Amino acid sequence: MSRSPAPKAETGFDRMDRLELRLQLEELYAEYAHCLDDGAIEQWPDFFADDCSYLLIPRENYDDGLPLATIRCESKGYLKDRVAAVQDTSLYAPLMLRHLVSGIRVTGVTADHVKAEANFAVLRTQVDEITKVFLAGRYVDTIIAEDGQLKFREKLAIHDSLLIPNTLVIPV
Amino acid sequence: MSRSPAPKAETGFDRMDRLELRLQLEELYAEYAHCLDDGAIEQWPDFFADDCSYLLIPRENYDDGLPLATIRCESKGYLKDRVAAVQDTSLYAPLMLRHLVSGIRVTGVTADHVKAEANFAVLRTQVDEITKVFLAGRYVDTIIAEDGQLKFREKLAIHDSLLIPNTLVIPV
Amino acid sequence: MSRSPAPKAETGFDRMDRLELRLQLEELYAEYAHCLDDGAIEQWPDFFADDCSYLLIPRENYDDGLPLATIRCESKGYLKDRVAAVQDTSLYAPLMLRHLVSGIRVTGVTADHVKAEANFAVLRTQVDEITKVFLAGRYVDTIIAEDGQLKFREKLAIHDSLLIPNTLVIPV
Repeated sequence: MSRSPAPKAETGFDRMDRLELRLQLEELYAEYAHCLDDGAIEQWPDFFADDCSYLLIPRENYDDGLPLATIRCESKGYLKDRVAAVQDTSLYAPLMLRHLVSGIRVTGVTADHVKAEANFAVLRTQVDEITKVFLAGRYVDTIIAEDGQLKFREKLAIHDSLLIPNTLVIPV
Repeated sequence: MSRSPAPKAETGFDRMDRLELRLQLEELYAEYAHCLDDGAIEQWPDFFADDCSYLLIPRENYDDGLPLATIRCESKGYLKDRVAAVQDTSLYAPLMLRHLVSGIRVTGVTADHVKAEANFAVLRTQVDEITKVFLAGRYVDTIIAEDGQLKFREKLAIHDSLLIPNTLVIPV
Repeated sequence: MSRSPAPKAETGFDRMDRLELRLQLEELYAEYAHCLDDGAIEQWPDFFADDCSYLLIPRENYDDGLPLATIRCESKGYLKDRVAAVQDTSLYAPLMLRHLVSGIRVTGVTADHVKAEANFAVLRTQVDEITKVFLAGRYVDTIIAEDGQLKFREKLAIHDSLLIPNTLVIPV
């Protein structure tokens, strides 16, 4: 990760220049996608705060307030477990992913956090197949500064389809 | 909509900082996509100036100068009619959309308007189906400041396919 | 191309404002996509430095260090040959492309060049067909300033699929 340093605690997100904040969010989402697409999956938990939650959930369940999620990680330990599960499984089924993230929107700013949303699409390529759409949806995130970098305090990846066309469930 | 305030009339787009203009355009396209994907479709006309036009048109017709369009709205009243039509139809056929917008280009700036273009792809998800590509194409827009916000004076959504894989025609 | 002027040689990329650099990269990738999607393909070589290389290569070959590429252009002359080949072929098979580029990341900056990466997806539309995913992958680029504009010194377009669903091979 070669990102810009996050704002110092004494500054606060609400006093940050809007253009600077935008740049840092663009960098965060770009590095996050890079980690999942081309990077080392074991670095995925590093994008999260020490105290964090991650949810991959179908939009229908999210909209109806139903708790059933595709992936639910309530702590950094769970994130690491998920990485181990993906690493074990992907030995047998090589799968290439490609994240497209667009329309980043800042929906709230306080001194210590930023709320942001963005649209995502994930394309997947299996061996000897052409590239297909895997998932599309929306991130709904709460971001804080920790260890001098932006980190996800809470990340919801809400996917539009109820079905996921794969038995292997990977983070999005 | 939680967008930055548009430049005051006395300032003019041509005297605006380029980075600030870029940020405002990014915000406009992100909020527009959010309205169609997750927001309230009845707010869609709010993205347009009082005096406006909206055209969803196949690229072949646009390139050949043929007037036949998929949707043609010549005033804000037409936009509201379209919203009502979509609301009636979607009771019967729930359909989730996801807009990806990239490559925003400023193609002209005067004191009172900005011409901008961007690529779009729209993915759709129907109940019990996986997510598929719906449409892709290019926005060709004229944007003005009205009521303290950026609004579309003219919006062309030029889609690459001649066919649209749906009987319900929704705005893009 | 209506892009911002590149930094003057005496300034250097490493002394450029980060926000300004970001804007110029966004403009470069947007104009590049526009050229391939809607513009004049004969302008494609203009995005490259006089001394340049372009490679469209499957990810598997790139990762394994295998030289076999889908397109390999080792000079500007090769780029122009490729344009001529595409122009000849496309008379028989009209094909519309749509590039989505996201997640631009600056991975290195020196006085005289910038290293940048980005994710891409290319959608294609053939006559009387709906729009489909063509390719997805990652750009790995080295960019310099030449003739007052940003130009690709080296551009790698690394596509995730080993197969390309088309006999006509066009630049990405």
